[in-house]
Amino acid sequence: MYIGVDIGGTSIKMGVVDDNCNITSELEIPTGAERHQNIVFEDILNAVKKLSLNNNIKAVGIDSPGMIDTKSGTVIYNNNLNWIDFHIGAMMSEALNLPVTLDNDADAAALGEAVAGSAKGSSRALIVTLGTGVGSGFIVDGKIFSGCEFGHMVVQHGGRLCTCGRKGCFEMYASATGLIISTKEAIEKYPDSKLARMAEAQGKITGKTAFDAADEGDKTALEVVNNYIDYLACGLANYVNGLHPEIISIGGGISKQGDSLLNPLRERIKPEIYGYKHMKEEPVKILACTLGNKAGLIGAAMSAKQVL
Amino acid sequence: MYIGVDIGGTSIKMGVVDDNCNITSELEIPTGAERHQNIVFEDILNAVKKLSLNNNIKAVGIDSPGMIDTKSGTVIYNNNLNWIDFHIGAMMSEALNLPVTLDNDADAAALGEAVAGSAKGSSRALIVTLGTGVGSGFIVDGKIFSGCEFGHMVVQHGGRLCTCGRKGCFEMYASATGLIISTKEAIEKYPDSKLARMAEAQGKITGKTAFDAADEGDKTALEVVNNYIDYLACGLANYVNGLHPEIISIGGGISKQGDSLLNPLRERIKPEIYGYKHMKEEPVKILACTLGNKAGLIGAAMSAKQVL
Repeated sequence: MYIGVDIGGTSIKMGVVDDNCNITSELEIPTGAERHQNIVFEDILNAVKKLSLNNNIKAVGIDSPGMIDTKSGTVIYNNNLNWIDFHIGAMMSEALNLPVTLDNDADAAALGEAVAGSAKGSSRALIVTLGTGVGSGFIVDGKIFSGCEFGHMVVQHGGRLCTCGRKGCFEMYASATGLIISTKEAIEKYPDSKLARMAEAQGKITGKTAFDAADEGDKTALEVVNNYIDYLACGLANYVNGLHPEIISIGGGISKQGDSLLNPLRERIKPEIYGYKHMKEEPVKILACTLGNKAGLIGAAMSAKQVL
Repeated sequence: MYIGVDIGGTSIKMGVVDDNCNITSELEIPTGAERHQNIVFEDILNAVKKLSLNNNIKAVGIDSPGMIDTKSGTVIYNNNLNWIDFHIGAMMSEALNLPVTLDNDADAAALGEAVAGSAKGSSRALIVTLGTGVGSGFIVDGKIFSGCEFGHMVVQHGGRLCTCGRKGCFEMYASATGLIISTKEAIEKYPDSKLARMAEAQGKITGKTAFDAADEGDKTALEVVNNYIDYLACGLANYVNGLHPEIISIGGGISKQGDSLLNPLRERIKPEIYGYKHMKEEPVKILACTLGNKAGLIGAAMSAKQVL
């Protein structure tokens, strides 16, 4: 048995995971990121000890957002949690006398999807999360290809300013944040559109607003959604041309649109794939993630299993 | 000993390569691509047999431009050579009764640079060739990560139409072809510039023209070169953020500019790298390729060695 620890900005999800990727028991604690990192560590340690009781735990896998050094098990830097040089891996390993791994959260979630979810059995899988940002993890032969920040790939040179400092990152167009920007721009331009009226009625603009108005046939919203899918196809095709994943699994809030997002995306990406017309097989399958918010926990545990 | 066969549009370079990547004998034949692929095959076979004499050849590695199926040793499609489903790997293996590998030419050249050239000893190396197009090969732990067409990564959504059908490919800005387009655009806009006069004097515009005029301080040319380096940094940073190569080696015609290209590029790329200011070490070394047009031959031979 392995323990997976999935650290998020608000809460930390933990669970005991067996060799078949089943979660046999679970625990969730608040992150309390405003506290010192060593205090947060004590909380995690106690919860892990609790989960360990009566379980033959062989290793613990942690994942965290931020810049990670997997070799030394260190969170080098995390903007939201205000962590700097947090040696959580080594500290946990010493306290438990067990092997402990530390991975980036998007990497762990990708590993979860690749070993137990939507991309099970594929030799190259790319997991892309369309949320506040664009998270990404690339799994090659069942292992994390660490550190892939595909969200910070410029697709529009000189375009929208990203939080990372670059201009025109994929994330600024394909994330929920990007879609909200596009929706706002369209509403400003077409204040009489149904999209504008629906946004006003909802009281706020989310990543769902344009899809909802498009479902009702609003022309402005349809254009926003089409442009969104266009950018999404563009960025994903960049990955396909560069890395040839067999499967791209889409997760995150926007993926809840399901086939009304995925079907046009599957069509739109084809002409963008290098040499598409000469290919005998579909170059890539685009699927929805299946593990939801358990992907990180399972992936972290499976990453720990891999070091044994 | 291994034989490497590097197929190009004009000529085919072949050589016997030892375990230390030294070429001990060489041969070059014209490709004669206008002939049927089976006739070309006979020529290659005879030359390989000639090279094999008095050498204990254990395996043969071939590389070719075009779309390659490495598993079956097939050139699926090559536009310039007019090859379709050319089973050169299996044919060669049967004729010689030896293991034969087939790789994409950019991949083989990248492997050469990674095992014997500029990127020797690195665990992740990206080799980028700035020629007519942008070639790329990605080497992970000394092995080809096959099929990386990074030149066909869109960096300017809706931008210049590429030969592949996409708009705004990296190749359309960072290749010699891209630089020539930019140079022409600048000359049209500033017909009185020194750049325009130099181009007229040279009788044609090449990937060197703007660099030459920039060396003489021409403002228009400096802007062309700066923009060129800007796009180059943008695309390379996309690779760094996505794949974290330790080394990027630059080859191809434009790389002959040497440090007058590489030094500003090294500076320009820094702010584009995700989390750069929190990094304790330089995230990537940018170097010039060192094997020149022998990289493919050596890489193809070393790819063959790897299957033994």
